[in-house]
Amino acid sequence: MEEEQEKDAARRHREKMEKRKAVQDAEVAGKTIAQKGLLMVHTGSGKGKSTAAFGLALRALGHGWKVGVVQFGKGGWRSGEREMLEKLGEVSWHTLGEGFTWETQDRARDEAAARRAWETACALMDDPEIRLLVLDELNISLRYDHLPLGEVVERLAARREGLHIVVTGRNAKPEMIAAADLVTEMTLVKHHFAAGVKAQEGIEF
Amino acid sequence: MEEEQEKDAARRHREKMEKRKAVQDAEVAGKTIAQKGLLMVHTGSGKGKSTAAFGLALRALGHGWKVGVVQFGKGGWRSGEREMLEKLGEVSWHTLGEGFTWETQDRARDEAAARRAWETACALMDDPEIRLLVLDELNISLRYDHLPLGEVVERLAARREGLHIVVTGRNAKPEMIAAADLVTEMTLVKHHFAAGVKAQEGIEF
Repeated sequence: MEEEQEKDAARRHREKMEKRKAVQDAEVAGKTIAQKGLLMVHTGSGKGKSTAAFGLALRALGHGWKVGVVQFGKGGWRSGEREMLEKLGEVSWHTLGEGFTWETQDRARDEAAARRAWETACALMDDPEIRLLVLDELNISLRYDHLPLGEVVERLAARREGLHIVVTGRNAKPEMIAAADLVTEMTLVKHHFAAGVKAQEGIEF
Repeated sequence: MEEEQEKDAARRHREKMEKRKAVQDAEVAGKTIAQKGLLMVHTGSGKGKSTAAFGLALRALGHGWKVGVVQFGKGGWRSGEREMLEKLGEVSWHTLGEGFTWETQDRARDEAAARRAWETACALMDDPEIRLLVLDELNISLRYDHLPLGEVVERLAARREGLHIVVTGRNAKPEMIAAADLVTEMTLVKHHFAAGVKAQEGIEF
C-alpha cells in the first residue's frame, strides 16, 4: 500500500512538473515571438511621411501580417495605395476624416470626425490580429486640439506588446515624440512646385 | 500637260502637308500625355528613404505604370517588398550591389559592381515602358567614388520626358541635389536602437 502511495505521489509530481514545464515553454515561446511593438512617428514638412508609412504596410503584408489603417484626414487621394495593399493581404482600412477646419470651418464637425477616427483606432489596437497600425495624419488632429493629447498619448503608450504603430503628420507634439520609439523628420530641401511644376498623377496622388 | 503637272504638284504639296500635320499632331498628343518626369532624392541619416521609394513604387503600380528598381547596395533584406510589388504589376528588379568597401575590402570589385548596376539603370532609363525608376542607394556608390559623379548626374538630368526617378541613400552629393526637382532629407530624431531594442522582422527587414 505504501508502494502504491509512493507511486501515486510520484505520478502527481511528474504531472505537476510537466504542467509547469508546459507553462514555461509557452512563456519562452511567447518571448521568442513577441517583440517590442514600436511607436513610430513620421513628421516634418517634407514629403514621404505617409508614403513611407504605406511602404511599411507593404513590408508588413509581405510578412503575412494583418494591417490596420485609420486616416484622420480626408485621404481620398490615397485610394490607389489602398487598392494595391488590399490586393496583398488583410487590410482594415478606415478613412474617417472629413477635411480639417481650414476647409470645413466647422469645429464641432471636425472634433466629431476625429473622435470617430480615434475610436476606430482604439478598436484596431484591441484587435489581436493587427500587427501594424497606421494612424495617418493623427498629428494634425492633435495639433488643432480635435482630440485630447493626454488621452491619445497614454493609450498609444499602453498598446499591447507586439503591436507596431506609425503616426504621421507634420508638427508632432513633444509629448508624442517623447512617447515614441522612433521619430523621423522629413525635411523639405527642394521642391519642384517652387519651380512651377504642377501636382502629378502617380507621384502626388 | 501643264494641267497634269499642276495636279501632281498639288498632290505632292497635300502629301507633304499631311505628313507635317501628322508630326505636329503626334507632338501635341505627346505633350498632353507627357508630364515632367521628376528627379527625386531621399537622403539624410534617418529611416524611410528606401521605404518611401517603395511606397512610391506601390502608388505607381496602382496607376498601372511599369516600375524599374536597381539596388546599388546588397539589398537582400528588401526581398519581401520585391515579392509584394511583383504581385501587383510589372516590376523590373535588379539587385546588383555586392556590399560596399567596408564589407568587401575590395575596391575594384565595388567599382565593377557599381558599374554593372549603373549600366542596368541606363538600360532602364532607355526603356520607354518604365515610368518610375528607383535607384536605391546610388548616393552611397557616388559618395565612395565608385562611379563618376559627373557622368551619372548628367545622364539623370538628360532622362527622357515623363520618366520619374527616385535616388536614395544618405550623403547625397551637392551636384545630385542641384540636379533634383525634389529633395527630402530624412532626419533621425529618436531611435529605438539607442534604447536597446534589436532590429525586428517586419519593421527593419
